[in-house]
Amino acid sequence: MTASPQDNLVDWLRDAHAMEAQAEKMLTAQAARLEHYPRLRQRIEQHIRETQEQRQVLEGCLSRLGSSPSTLKDMGGKLMALGQAIGGAPMSDEVIKGAISGYVFENLEIATYSVLIAAAAALGDHETQQACERIREQEQAMAAWLLDDLPATTRAFLERSADPDLTAKR
Amino acid sequence: MTASPQDNLVDWLRDAHAMEAQAEKMLTAQAARLEHYPRLRQRIEQHIRETQEQRQVLEGCLSRLGSSPSTLKDMGGKLMALGQAIGGAPMSDEVIKGAISGYVFENLEIATYSVLIAAAAALGDHETQQACERIREQEQAMAAWLLDDLPATTRAFLERSADPDLTAKR
Repeated sequence: MTASPQDNLVDWLRDAHAMEAQAEKMLTAQAARLEHYPRLRQRIEQHIRETQEQRQVLEGCLSRLGSSPSTLKDMGGKLMALGQAIGGAPMSDEVIKGAISGYVFENLEIATYSVLIAAAAALGDHETQQACERIREQEQAMAAWLLDDLPATTRAFLERSADPDLTAKR
Repeated sequence: MTASPQDNLVDWLRDAHAMEAQAEKMLTAQAARLEHYPRLRQRIEQHIRETQEQRQVLEGCLSRLGSSPSTLKDMGGKLMALGQAIGGAPMSDEVIKGAISGYVFENLEIATYSVLIAAAAALGDHETQQACERIREQEQAMAAWLLDDLPATTRAFLERSADPDLTAKR
């Protein structure tokens, strides 16, 4: 079964669109549950706004290529599982697992946009290429922030977790 | 419910151990399926050997802390879903989704070891800290390799995908 580079590009843009929709759901659930980690919550809220804009940019790319987002892509189901891990699992170390999962999801996005950038470049679709490069920068910034923040959040969690007067998990 | 820093460290080491066991399964399935992307396959095979050693290092850390790996940790179930996405999904762009998923899993490992390093440092457990730092370096090298390789694998996939005489997917 052959597929043209453009067929593949369109498929991957639709995957990316489903991914960003999933990202928004997860980030929103995660931010709503965080109580004791305000810096993390604030950064997530900033990224929710970026995520909403990214989805619109992807819709513009798909529309220029004569396509549109698909509401139910294969990838969606696989992302759901990861999403559930992020969105609010009732674990005693929820803040830690959430921060890890958020970082992991950012890296899913970074890799997805790296494929899109290479595909758009191979096709000579500079507009899609540049749009994806800009989005990838935001994902890289969010991923770097989350990884930098992880030691401090881990220490805060350990202190709260050992103190009977405090709750630690979120 | 309180937990001591050491309780948390042991829990996270067990998570990491379950994660590496899952990693080995996924990487083995992925390498076995790859036919037309020999460089990628070779790098994965190298990382399988590293992964086996990492599991032994984690077992040593757990044993020093008076604990042992758990065979069925909560996290395992969540990783399974991601694992299935990597191990051999029958998608037309399997090599691309596999490379993305492999990169994502490496970043799960990087974040997990970052938490472990911070927790071991907070506890003054330098041996665990250094063991996790060494493992994280291998994960970072693998993640960087996969991300660097992604544009070339994408171009190779697009070329094979457009050619009726070639198979592209793996």
